[in-house]
Amino acid sequence: MQIEKIILAKRPVGEPTFDNFKLEFFNCPEIKSGEILVKVKWLSLDPYMRGRMDNVRSYASPVEIGEAMEGECIGEIIVSKNEKFAVSELVIGKFGWVSHAISNGHGLRKLKRTNIPEQTALGVLGMPGHTAWTGLNKIANAKKEETIVISAASGAVGSLAGQLAKKKGLKVIGIAGNDQKCSYVVNELGFDGCINHNNVTNTKEFSNLIQSYCPNGVDIYFENVAGKTLEAIIPNMNDFGRIAVCGMISWYSGKGIDQAISLPKLWRTILVRRLRVNGFIIFDHKETYPQFIEEVSPLVQKQEIIYKEDIKAGLSNAPSAFIDLLNGRNFGKLLVKVSD
Amino acid sequence: MQIEKIILAKRPVGEPTFDNFKLEFFNCPEIKSGEILVKVKWLSLDPYMRGRMDNVRSYASPVEIGEAMEGECIGEIIVSKNEKFAVSELVIGKFGWVSHAISNGHGLRKLKRTNIPEQTALGVLGMPGHTAWTGLNKIANAKKEETIVISAASGAVGSLAGQLAKKKGLKVIGIAGNDQKCSYVVNELGFDGCINHNNVTNTKEFSNLIQSYCPNGVDIYFENVAGKTLEAIIPNMNDFGRIAVCGMISWYSGKGIDQAISLPKLWRTILVRRLRVNGFIIFDHKETYPQFIEEVSPLVQKQEIIYKEDIKAGLSNAPSAFIDLLNGRNFGKLLVKVSD
Repeated sequence: MQIEKIILAKRPVGEPTFDNFKLEFFNCPEIKSGEILVKVKWLSLDPYMRGRMDNVRSYASPVEIGEAMEGECIGEIIVSKNEKFAVSELVIGKFGWVSHAISNGHGLRKLKRTNIPEQTALGVLGMPGHTAWTGLNKIANAKKEETIVISAASGAVGSLAGQLAKKKGLKVIGIAGNDQKCSYVVNELGFDGCINHNNVTNTKEFSNLIQSYCPNGVDIYFENVAGKTLEAIIPNMNDFGRIAVCGMISWYSGKGIDQAISLPKLWRTILVRRLRVNGFIIFDHKETYPQFIEEVSPLVQKQEIIYKEDIKAGLSNAPSAFIDLLNGRNFGKLLVKVSD
Repeated sequence: MQIEKIILAKRPVGEPTFDNFKLEFFNCPEIKSGEILVKVKWLSLDPYMRGRMDNVRSYASPVEIGEAMEGECIGEIIVSKNEKFAVSELVIGKFGWVSHAISNGHGLRKLKRTNIPEQTALGVLGMPGHTAWTGLNKIANAKKEETIVISAASGAVGSLAGQLAKKKGLKVIGIAGNDQKCSYVVNELGFDGCINHNNVTNTKEFSNLIQSYCPNGVDIYFENVAGKTLEAIIPNMNDFGRIAVCGMISWYSGKGIDQAISLPKLWRTILVRRLRVNGFIIFDHKETYPQFIEEVSPLVQKQEIIYKEDIKAGLSNAPSAFIDLLNGRNFGKLLVKVSD
């Protein structure tokens, strides 16, 4: 049987391009005692993967050249020589950008089949959802009647963060990259407003626009993007404001900034407005996963929380889908349907 | 009777100079019913005052042109037409850079005469001391066996922060501006090491030096200075590190940076190392003042905590003393002895 893997062929300089990836084929080795063979059904593509392509110190090791790209997947067990796992069970694991994986079961989580679509376990009820919930509740300590601004508002994290914030009674303003996304964020997700950052010509104008949407200032900024959005937010932050630094997609590929905010200006704002800026990574917060699921899963079931999926078919389409993701050309949680 | 005031004559551009200040004389008006007349004994000079000279949004209003410079003082009541205050009582208040003040008593705190020198109420047992205690315990959540780096280590805030951190069982490294200060910090205050930032030629060298003093990385940075010190610290911060942003004296007068740390690089470090950066101003933390006094006052009494005072005689010397302070030419808590 043939196994497909998309490997990191070479490290990107700036934005990833197709030649950073290669699709390779392998023969499936024999499954040994204690092992299982998993057929991957769904691969989640997420912005953090850009970081793994660089050979720099981070919260996780980089992907090595020639290794399969990292990624969380849902798979179905098709061979089992491990008594804890049965054929046809669904499992979630970091199998990577692959068609099949062999595992000893370590680090896998079983996924029950319910009436909620299974792939939500990679999205609204998975890592991105848990990220949104944690950023809002544990990092930013969002409180009723505060104003929150959420960048990448139509994305997997932002869309849930905003809906949960609305349920908590906050005023919620999104930032997204085109009018269609903004319309979705306001009309379907129920945000109080959404700014298309591609409609502004400079940071000053952007900053003024945020001010007009948030006349009482910004108490919380849920940071997924950085770049000019960050620069435009800083002057709008209220005293005792919090910035939950969850991602910085506009800087993942080393893009520059408008320099509207210098480091001294940022630092001065942090000091005089007593801001709290807090970076966080969801892998540090496993202990709150059950609490998150308990709260959000019924809301998804009752369709009080909605989510959008952007599904690409076929593993070989992962590189182009990922490059589009980094450029904001996805719309909703990006998933690759690797097999039925 | 003559009242002296040092007023803000014009706003500084960059570093303050003598022509930003003017000493003016007034006749003492009649003391009305409900008022007291206070003869100022001690004026505290602190770096935050630089911020009040600029006409920009901050946590407090700027000093207006022609107004007395702001400052906390200890004074003795010499006339009282307010039954709550008696002649010869000591009071602490924000009288400013003045020889005498008339007050209705609002916002004043009485100071008992004890065997601890009264001026400690402006230093180690006053606002700077409370700042050190709060930054360490409430903002940075310092824990035993962590490594803390403290800039302006021989200053009023830094010297107490470091001594309290040692008592809590942290490894404590100071940063100061000359060898004499460094020697004091290590040999008298008991820090584990102290770096003279004027002995390094660039940020990279500075950063490496911090690394050699902190081979296990930096868990907490107590920020009083910013500038190149901040730039040199950032690469040394450990995962889950905290930066308590208390001051940024090197940037108060708009000095530039080495640009060793760009905003994207800072932001990336905050994210991947999950840093918490927290600006704070002591005026927000009045509720912890009794707890601070209860803990630190006996330590001062028993001389387990030591402090250094840099005392200038005469109100007219306040401008030069303040300019020296901003350039690190003080050594210890800077006080003006306005009268006996």
